Amino acid sequence: MTLIVQKYGGTSVGTLERIQAVADRVIATRRQGHDVVVVVSAMSGETDRLLELARGLAARPTEREVDVLLATGEQVTIALLTIALHDKGQDAVSFTGAQVRILTDSAFNKARIRDIDGAQVRKALAEGKVVVVAGFQGIDGSGNITTLGRGGSDITAVAMAAALKADECSIYTDVDGVYTADPRIVPDATRLDRISYEEMLEMASLGSKVLQIRSVEFAGKYHVPLRVLSSFKAGRGTLIIDEDEKMEQALIAGIAHNRDEAKLTIVGVPDRPGIAHGILGPIADANIEVDMIVQNVGADKTTDFTFTVHRNDYDKALEILQKTAGKMGAQGVNGDKRIVKISIVGVGMRSHAGIASRMFKALAGEGINIQMISTSEIKISVVVDEKYLELGVRALHSEFGLDKGAGKAGG
Amino acid sequence: MTLIVQKYGGTSVGTLERIQAVADRVIATRRQGHDVVVVVSAMSGETDRLLELARGLAARPTEREVDVLLATGEQVTIALLTIALHDKGQDAVSFTGAQVRILTDSAFNKARIRDIDGAQVRKALAEGKVVVVAGFQGIDGSGNITTLGRGGSDITAVAMAAALKADECSIYTDVDGVYTADPRIVPDATRLDRISYEEMLEMASLGSKVLQIRSVEFAGKYHVPLRVLSSFKAGRGTLIIDEDEKMEQALIAGIAHNRDEAKLTIVGVPDRPGIAHGILGPIADANIEVDMIVQNVGADKTTDFTFTVHRNDYDKALEILQKTAGKMGAQGVNGDKRIVKISIVGVGMRSHAGIASRMFKALAGEGINIQMISTSEIKISVVVDEKYLELGVRALHSEFGLDKGAGKAGG
Repeated sequence: MTLIVQKYGGTSVGTLERIQAVADRVIATRRQGHDVVVVVSAMSGETDRLLELARGLAARPTEREVDVLLATGEQVTIALLTIALHDKGQDAVSFTGAQVRILTDSAFNKARIRDIDGAQVRKALAEGKVVVVAGFQGIDGSGNITTLGRGGSDITAVAMAAALKADECSIYTDVDGVYTADPRIVPDATRLDRISYEEMLEMASLGSKVLQIRSVEFAGKYHVPLRVLSSFKAGRGTLIIDEDEKMEQALIAGIAHNRDEAKLTIVGVPDRPGIAHGILGPIADANIEVDMIVQNVGADKTTDFTFTVHRNDYDKALEILQKTAGKMGAQGVNGDKRIVKISIVGVGMRSHAGIASRMFKALAGEGINIQMISTSEIKISVVVDEKYLELGVRALHSEFGLDKGAGKAGG
Repeated sequence: MTLIVQKYGGTSVGTLERIQAVADRVIATRRQGHDVVVVVSAMSGETDRLLELARGLAARPTEREVDVLLATGEQVTIALLTIALHDKGQDAVSFTGAQVRILTDSAFNKARIRDIDGAQVRKALAEGKVVVVAGFQGIDGSGNITTLGRGGSDITAVAMAAALKADECSIYTDVDGVYTADPRIVPDATRLDRISYEEMLEMASLGSKVLQIRSVEFAGKYHVPLRVLSSFKAGRGTLIIDEDEKMEQALIAGIAHNRDEAKLTIVGVPDRPGIAHGILGPIADANIEVDMIVQNVGADKTTDFTFTVHRNDYDKALEILQKTAGKMGAQGVNGDKRIVKISIVGVGMRSHAGIASRMFKALAGEGINIQMISTSEIKISVVVDEKYLELGVRALHSEFGLDKGAGKAGG
């Protein structure tokens, strides 16, 4: 008997009809001989409705009470799904985060799971029941209701799978898996059967919004096989697993891109120790997150310092940087919102030299000028003019043999 | 420092504006120097909305899961009220039934409270907080969420008051107290300052729908002073207390009436032991509740047996009774839906003879024919033709000196 944890998001349980469909899918999994734990989110729109009520009473509603309020969203869904399962003849039982004893810290609205006491769940499973668990919520050591913040239900599912030593955690979403590139940009993109946690993390952090980074990290840490698949379309989705379990070791797993960044440069800063901190300190103080950073010292003992931030933070960052430039005696400040980041991701590049130069050559072949470069062990990112986004992604997708049928043609 | 438990029903918290108004009232009570525990219901309409969802999935939704579902209604209200209190500068904290540890039996949808562990609540009060508790809900010994059924939030309030040894439990409703008679029938009816639990029970059971019988019983059992007052209108309401605390011992507390009953008679039943059971057994088996019962044996060794049931059960009861009449060899069956019950209620009648005859005389004086009579220690009820309802109630209200200004005129 294997144990599968399934997670359905707000859209998947957004109407009574969809809840019925989820119940059917759960029962189908049960009939395949698996034990099933189902983690659900609030029905789509419910969380916003509740937040609107709270904001109607206070500009900044108390965080503890917002969690008490929001936790009702998932509680409604677990009851409804369990009612639907019973009506279809499947024994089942619902548990809130408090009932499962999903213990978290006390950081309301963004709590972190510390421990799960799965005794109640195990008992119910042993009785042949499907167990329906409220995602996104827990309790702290004092019994206060907490919520886990964005992507919280995914985290709940992964944590439940880890605690119960489940054979797999299936995350049902509105996409049918992880692709070698965004299919809207690369029509030849293919769905990956398997990808490692590390690759998935890089893909996620680069804007492939299939999964929240936190849940991938969590799954990797506890070696929970994580499957991403569609609520609405049949298919095996993409399995995210440990690197050494990944059979087919492709050089590059996929091409990711991110249009959410903007670039800022402070020009002609007199070069002396501490300038990086002098420039980025005030940016960090304003709670602006910095992604890529590039610095080059010129011949004239001054340096140009460039970094990227989220586009929403661009104006604020520019203002701060102008003040900094004044203080530091820099020549000036400039910035560009019309950029994109394109990255190649793959654990294979660890053991293969020359990947970077193949990447740069492919881009150069299309006449694409590279503005910034940043590398990690399993990823190389470049910043280019946003007009080159599609061209660049397609060129790299083709260069690294990811196009549909390319593997076959090459083999 | 006195401790007041306040309870606000669904209408009183039905909109954000009303929740603000409740917060203001709670703060005003706090500023008078009282500790305050607030028990709230779900916002009006919410419980129906949730039940409709459940019924959209199953004709008979699982009782356990219905309780999980419905409990979210009050959880939303406690969060919102606490947010409103904080926004107005009053420290406060919300607790669900599970968090207070309101322990109940496992009768889902109609659980009974067994015990309340008020430690968390006491601690929060000691910290100067207003405590906001979800009404209507608890948990059973296994940690399952339960709900208390109709009037459940009143019960929660009374039980909290008992557990915390509160000085008073104030139930805020849409009426401003208990009246000597229905003011729509008797314009001269006056609001009672005080009434005993027993009198209130009789008034409630006779159709004065101010409070559920269960909560009055509960308050009486634990000697919790219970005040009924309006959410929307200033005023001291009516205090329901132990008989011996009731200072002004009026003969009659009030005149109650009930238009919800219907009368059935089985005529000419051969008189022998066991006929009452023979007649009422099948009625009870059909889950029909019987109120008044009158039996008289005639000279011809047959008896006429009359009883009243709720009007909704009349047709079913009549059908059953016709079968019974056939089996018993009775002469026939007749019934009447056009009746009302009028009652005088007062602990004073215990020690005063002649109350019944004053009542009958007053009715006779208006030419009202009495069809049935039933008495208890502190109540006398008569059944009359429904056309005499207003006339009868007014005659009795006046006879027993309850009219506005009557006390003064008489004293």
